[in-house]
Amino acid sequence: MFEKFNKERSFEQVRETAKRLISAHGESNAQSIALKLVDQYERLDARQRQVFFDFLSSDFNPDPAKVKAMADAYASDPSASNLIALCRQTEPRRQELLRRINRAPGGTKAIVEMRKSLLPMLKDHDSWRVIDADMHHLLSSWFNPGFLELHQITWESPAEILEKIIQHESVHAIDGWDDLRRRLQPDRRCFAFFHRQLPKEPLIFVEVALVPSISRDVNVLIDKNSPVAETKTFKTAIFYSISNCQSGLRGVSLGNFLIKRVAQKLAEEIPTLKVYSTLSPIPGLTRWLEAGAPLEAAEVTAPLKRKMEEARRVLGLPGRSWSERIKEGWCPQTCSDREQKALMSLGAAYLKHYTTSRQGDAVANFHLSNGATLHQLNWAADLSKKGLQQSAGLMVNYLYELDKVEEQHEAFSKGKVTCSRSIEKFI
Amino acid sequence: MFEKFNKERSFEQVRETAKRLISAHGESNAQSIALKLVDQYERLDARQRQVFFDFLSSDFNPDPAKVKAMADAYASDPSASNLIALCRQTEPRRQELLRRINRAPGGTKAIVEMRKSLLPMLKDHDSWRVIDADMHHLLSSWFNPGFLELHQITWESPAEILEKIIQHESVHAIDGWDDLRRRLQPDRRCFAFFHRQLPKEPLIFVEVALVPSISRDVNVLIDKNSPVAETKTFKTAIFYSISNCQSGLRGVSLGNFLIKRVAQKLAEEIPTLKVYSTLSPIPGLTRWLEAGAPLEAAEVTAPLKRKMEEARRVLGLPGRSWSERIKEGWCPQTCSDREQKALMSLGAAYLKHYTTSRQGDAVANFHLSNGATLHQLNWAADLSKKGLQQSAGLMVNYLYELDKVEEQHEAFSKGKVTCSRSIEKFI
Amino acid sequence: MFEKFNKERSFEQVRETAKRLISAHGESNAQSIALKLVDQYERLDARQRQVFFDFLSSDFNPDPAKVKAMADAYASDPSASNLIALCRQTEPRRQELLRRINRAPGGTKAIVEMRKSLLPMLKDHDSWRVIDADMHHLLSSWFNPGFLELHQITWESPAEILEKIIQHESVHAIDGWDDLRRRLQPDRRCFAFFHRQLPKEPLIFVEVALVPSISRDVNVLIDKNSPVAETKTFKTAIFYSISNCQSGLRGVSLGNFLIKRVAQKLAEEIPTLKVYSTLSPIPGLTRWLEAGAPLEAAEVTAPLKRKMEEARRVLGLPGRSWSERIKEGWCPQTCSDREQKALMSLGAAYLKHYTTSRQGDAVANFHLSNGATLHQLNWAADLSKKGLQQSAGLMVNYLYELDKVEEQHEAFSKGKVTCSRSIEKFI
Amino acid sequence: MFEKFNKERSFEQVRETAKRLISAHGESNAQSIALKLVDQYERLDARQRQVFFDFLSSDFNPDPAKVKAMADAYASDPSASNLIALCRQTEPRRQELLRRINRAPGGTKAIVEMRKSLLPMLKDHDSWRVIDADMHHLLSSWFNPGFLELHQITWESPAEILEKIIQHESVHAIDGWDDLRRRLQPDRRCFAFFHRQLPKEPLIFVEVALVPSISRDVNVLIDKNSPVAETKTFKTAIFYSISNCQSGLRGVSLGNFLIKRVAQKLAEEIPTLKVYSTLSPIPGLTRWLEAGAPLEAAEVTAPLKRKMEEARRVLGLPGRSWSERIKEGWCPQTCSDREQKALMSLGAAYLKHYTTSRQGDAVANFHLSNGATLHQLNWAADLSKKGLQQSAGLMVNYLYELDKVEEQHEAFSKGKVTCSRSIEKFI
Repeated sequence: MFEKFNKERSFEQVRETAKRLISAHGESNAQSIALKLVDQYERLDARQRQVFFDFLSSDFNPDPAKVKAMADAYASDPSASNLIALCRQTEPRRQELLRRINRAPGGTKAIVEMRKSLLPMLKDHDSWRVIDADMHHLLSSWFNPGFLELHQITWESPAEILEKIIQHESVHAIDGWDDLRRRLQPDRRCFAFFHRQLPKEPLIFVEVALVPSISRDVNVLIDKNSPVAETKTFKTAIFYSISNCQSGLRGVSLGNFLIKRVAQKLAEEIPTLKVYSTLSPIPGLTRWLEAGAPLEAAEVTAPLKRKMEEARRVLGLPGRSWSERIKEGWCPQTCSDREQKALMSLGAAYLKHYTTSRQGDAVANFHLSNGATLHQLNWAADLSKKGLQQSAGLMVNYLYELDKVEEQHEAFSKGKVTCSRSIEKFI
Repeated sequence: MFEKFNKERSFEQVRETAKRLISAHGESNAQSIALKLVDQYERLDARQRQVFFDFLSSDFNPDPAKVKAMADAYASDPSASNLIALCRQTEPRRQELLRRINRAPGGTKAIVEMRKSLLPMLKDHDSWRVIDADMHHLLSSWFNPGFLELHQITWESPAEILEKIIQHESVHAIDGWDDLRRRLQPDRRCFAFFHRQLPKEPLIFVEVALVPSISRDVNVLIDKNSPVAETKTFKTAIFYSISNCQSGLRGVSLGNFLIKRVAQKLAEEIPTLKVYSTLSPIPGLTRWLEAGAPLEAAEVTAPLKRKMEEARRVLGLPGRSWSERIKEGWCPQTCSDREQKALMSLGAAYLKHYTTSRQGDAVANFHLSNGATLHQLNWAADLSKKGLQQSAGLMVNYLYELDKVEEQHEAFSKGKVTCSRSIEKFI
Repeated sequence: MFEKFNKERSFEQVRETAKRLISAHGESNAQSIALKLVDQYERLDARQRQVFFDFLSSDFNPDPAKVKAMADAYASDPSASNLIALCRQTEPRRQELLRRINRAPGGTKAIVEMRKSLLPMLKDHDSWRVIDADMHHLLSSWFNPGFLELHQITWESPAEILEKIIQHESVHAIDGWDDLRRRLQPDRRCFAFFHRQLPKEPLIFVEVALVPSISRDVNVLIDKNSPVAETKTFKTAIFYSISNCQSGLRGVSLGNFLIKRVAQKLAEEIPTLKVYSTLSPIPGLTRWLEAGAPLEAAEVTAPLKRKMEEARRVLGLPGRSWSERIKEGWCPQTCSDREQKALMSLGAAYLKHYTTSRQGDAVANFHLSNGATLHQLNWAADLSKKGLQQSAGLMVNYLYELDKVEEQHEAFSKGKVTCSRSIEKFI
Repeated sequence: MFEKFNKERSFEQVRETAKRLISAHGESNAQSIALKLVDQYERLDARQRQVFFDFLSSDFNPDPAKVKAMADAYASDPSASNLIALCRQTEPRRQELLRRINRAPGGTKAIVEMRKSLLPMLKDHDSWRVIDADMHHLLSSWFNPGFLELHQITWESPAEILEKIIQHESVHAIDGWDDLRRRLQPDRRCFAFFHRQLPKEPLIFVEVALVPSISRDVNVLIDKNSPVAETKTFKTAIFYSISNCQSGLRGVSLGNFLIKRVAQKLAEEIPTLKVYSTLSPIPGLTRWLEAGAPLEAAEVTAPLKRKMEEARRVLGLPGRSWSERIKEGWCPQTCSDREQKALMSLGAAYLKHYTTSRQGDAVANFHLSNGATLHQLNWAADLSKKGLQQSAGLMVNYLYELDKVEEQHEAFSKGKVTCSRSIEKFI
């Protein structure tokens, strides 16, 4: 009873502080009030935060009647004054509240953390989506690539930062400090975006291997006992891993800019580099195979249709789930040629034709939308448990040709996926 | 003929680039396009920039009919979806264009410069106010005090920065490098806000004198031959000058935060400091005297009315302009006691009662709105040409009591100006 | 045959380069020649280096006849000219050679490395001691504490540096990165001296624990799972480990200055700290016990003589070696009170009376010579294998009283060891 | 009376401190004692410093009898032990005292300042030359180029540093901040050596102009209103001024290393640079002319002898002093062709033949000894007052060919000056 009273009072405190923060005309003193708000928010428990999100999502919306009046006025006279007044009326005051929170030391971080705890609850609280929309809008503006700093991560970086790289690597796990040290030797590079307001937090990082030619097998790249290659052999940069560190920045475009900035930086530093490519998993492949490898009619030519029918038959699709197959001993090394051919065909079809649809492969979608092209499909390229389970051991190289990415991006946005011949021949 | 063609074509180029920048779905490649836009814009001549501003102000506004439809939908069902859709529809696409320009290296600076050239033309181009509104909106968000860095300016600062301090000091001009050096000695301090995107540009700076007690005379403070005071005499910090360096940031709140951050920083560094005050000009005073020292009836009590009548009579107001009086030899040192008393009374009335009105004194309005109080009116405190002409030689101390600024700010926002007794007694 | 020829030729090269380096009058171009010398030296194999050291030790010595003539001249007329000429003649040209090597980038490091490989061979090559003497002379001048930089080692330090801390800790081994991280938490500190010419090389470092009172048990201090203490409990700084990283700097005084600089720095940062003490091993103790715990007659009073006789009897000294005793199960926890008392008595006698002799305990000698005092002898304080073997599990606190170190140091240099009463009572 | 007593007592204090500093065995605590010594020394007045220098020069010399004994021992047995003992005995304890002073924060600077005040008094105090010898010996070791840091001086450098550049420029005076700014534009460069112990003090700096071809006229280079040249025109680096800032470092070799490091740095940064040359005054020329342009017989061939006779006759040498001639209107622009030819001949003879003698031109000696060659003699190249007075308006280019400097240096050290043909033809 008493505890409940306390809890409510502490939500009350945050609400009062929020109201004071937003009401202070002339915005004088916002900084100290914002600091208090951040502090009070951080002390709320899970239940109180829900009450706070209810408050945030309901108390700062524009007045529908006023908005309607302004919209009417703008419709009858689209003057500068009417537009300015309309914008001012329509923007939720929540955005101004967030901008004022952002004035406090640590304010930016607090908002990123707030959104991190908000996001997983959105599906159960539809009304909170307005909070998320406002946060996403502002964070996109503040984490604009023009405001980000690219830093190379090396063995001279602070241990504190390196520790976070180990922790956030989400594609090919880093097995402790010795593994990390290997990934920072001269023939491996790691770059991260940082923001001044979160100085010790990498936002997103990419790992690159400098190799003679396009890699087909990721195991070689992440082998911590491999010898360090000499500088003169660096011809190709393989982006073999890209990981986000801040879930509170979900949907804020970072990866695309990171890859291009890094490619540019490497090109300046290492004139022998001529090719920029990824070596990527196909995380949605087996799920699609298990669903029977569906494609919409429009995308399927007659020859492709025949090939896919044959492949489905050879693999017995949909049939058993991929994890069952693995449990029963399925692995790329023991596949027959027919099976291999069938899988490669379906993999190529999936990447080329399925990606443009909404449920397409997230990784494919990311790189193709960045303006990369489908370059090469690699058999038995990732034999890790995750690699077999999600991608049937396949990996794909997306090629970044810096002078063509813009054009490719436009083609992709119109539904066209550019493939190399080596991929085309599977389809 | 040929030249005209060229010019138009080069505006055409910017327009095409702007359209490409805004249309690129998925925002891939924005950085290189933005860079091109900035470059092309900078090559436009004055006439072409006007065409560009016409384009910017007309082509990126929301569709009135669609906005109206969304506003209606939101009015009948104020759901999250409807609000999010409404906001997306209403925000001028110009803001997204500016955010994308901001991705280019130098993008922020380009926008600040663009606004700098836009502002003086607004009065003749009402429709461009939508550009200004969008720029102000975004710049306020990006130059949020949370994103600014406070740096002390010392004799160890880069000459490049110091040169800009000399150039932008707008209250008490700095007479070359020796004068500047004196203003950076231990008993004088200078602090500026910087932003990472404009690393060599002070945005705004404040100069502070550390003295035993509240200064009444600015000539002492800016005397470049004065001896340097010892640390143990530092009891009072006098903010004697504050200057903006970026006219493209007009209206973005910086000064208020600067003064408070500096006061806080000084308090931490110098525990003997107990008082924080300004020594400020009253730039609108003589203009008001020349207009007959008008006050609205509501503000004037009977005794004040009598005092002001008497003062107007003594000074012969409105009468000749102040510059004529100065030409004829008027100066504070030769005023009679009656004249002095009359001027002090009117000065106090002006500051206390006229400031809250729209045409009030800009400096008074700034400090009182920050939460400072009217502390002391000083006779013959600024005998420079500008000081006599604008302020009749008067200066005023605004007192910053850090633990009361919030309360004072609220009182001021309700129209109440807090004065010390020494000021009250003149009224 | 052919290989031998090559080898000799490559020593020949170094010799030629060395001769050119030393002969270049006016010292023009020394930098490029020095660079070559360093490079050539580093390629020598072990055998060639010996030849090189023979050359270094024999070809750069002053001419005995000339020195004698100068000394005679100085003896008959001790004028400025004669002294200057004498000094110039006497100083081995080897020193000038080393100074010129030092001009090359990496020259300092090369000399430190050269000495590192020279030192272990000195006992078999008496003539090389002149090389060592010159190197020690110059390195002492260059690694003067005035030229050293004190840096705190934190979890934000480069991994590259931290790796070397792990590697060089020689008192209480660091068990990997997690152990290190614990030793860098707020209640533990680590400081190292660096030199600009060896920027990535800690020269010597000390580890400090901030605790409520003087620690008696090192196991508590180095427990990597211990909770981090709060700032307000920091009353006592325990220097629990000090390690040299550069064997090439042997004999160059670093530790004494490090401890005092760190104590001073901690005193400034943490005003609650009042006591500065070590918790140190007694590495020579058991060896002395095994030799029968000898003391010179002059040092032994009659009561002490009796006590020691009794203690030797109780412990059966000299008797079996300490490692045998440990093998047979000896450990402090199972000792009888009489044994404990006997060991504590002998430990105290060893520290107080044996230290001043040449063969005394190195650690005791180091701290007492720095001006610390013998404060407390701790039973069962280090139960590690090394602790039992060398120190019979005993540890001792040396107390640093900053305002008394100078006086204590002088007393010690006259043979007097200052003890607390708690130590005295054992003797 | 009383004051004198005080003064003497304060010298007494320094003496006591110096004795304590040198006597503290084991060197414990040297840092705090050294700090006190520096502080006490700095408070001495001019008279007391003389007493202190007397003390320094007399109390720390090696004992002649002991040195003699050691020298005898070494002469009869040149063993390692005897050499080490001899060196230890011979080195004045003053050096150890200075090394210990150097341990104090600010110790290095104190020694440099001490020497600065010592140097001008040496001619009247022959016995103090032992102090100077020891200081020079140690400072040369500590200001070894391996320990110096090369920094470019730019308009972004701290004003505090720039101010010292203005103050110490001793070849072509810098006329205020605007002049300095011009000398730091992209086609002009300035580099200085710094030492970590004197962080805000440039030790020596060089100014460089980047031009299309070897400059003949310094007025063009130092014209503060000249337009800034474009990068693509940078073919030749002209070192047009080099100035020492620390007279306490006199005789410590810095300039030679500075020029070579800068040439190397420029070569790396600007691949179009092919030629490195100076444009230098000939400061001893007119003094030599006034003395009748003497040359030793050995250097003069018959044709040269005739040429010089003729030139002396044309110019009326020795005749009136150069300053009288200037007063009477002499200037290069109004010279007859015969006079010009005569002066160029004598100038060339002076540089080629007189430089190697002891009283030769300091600037010529510096560059030729560095390994540069005499490249070109320029008429009417420096029309400043100083240029006319010292060099009769002539200037000379010394050419630095980086791959030949070593060889040229050796030739010069054997008395051979390498000239271009354009110089040879004047002789």
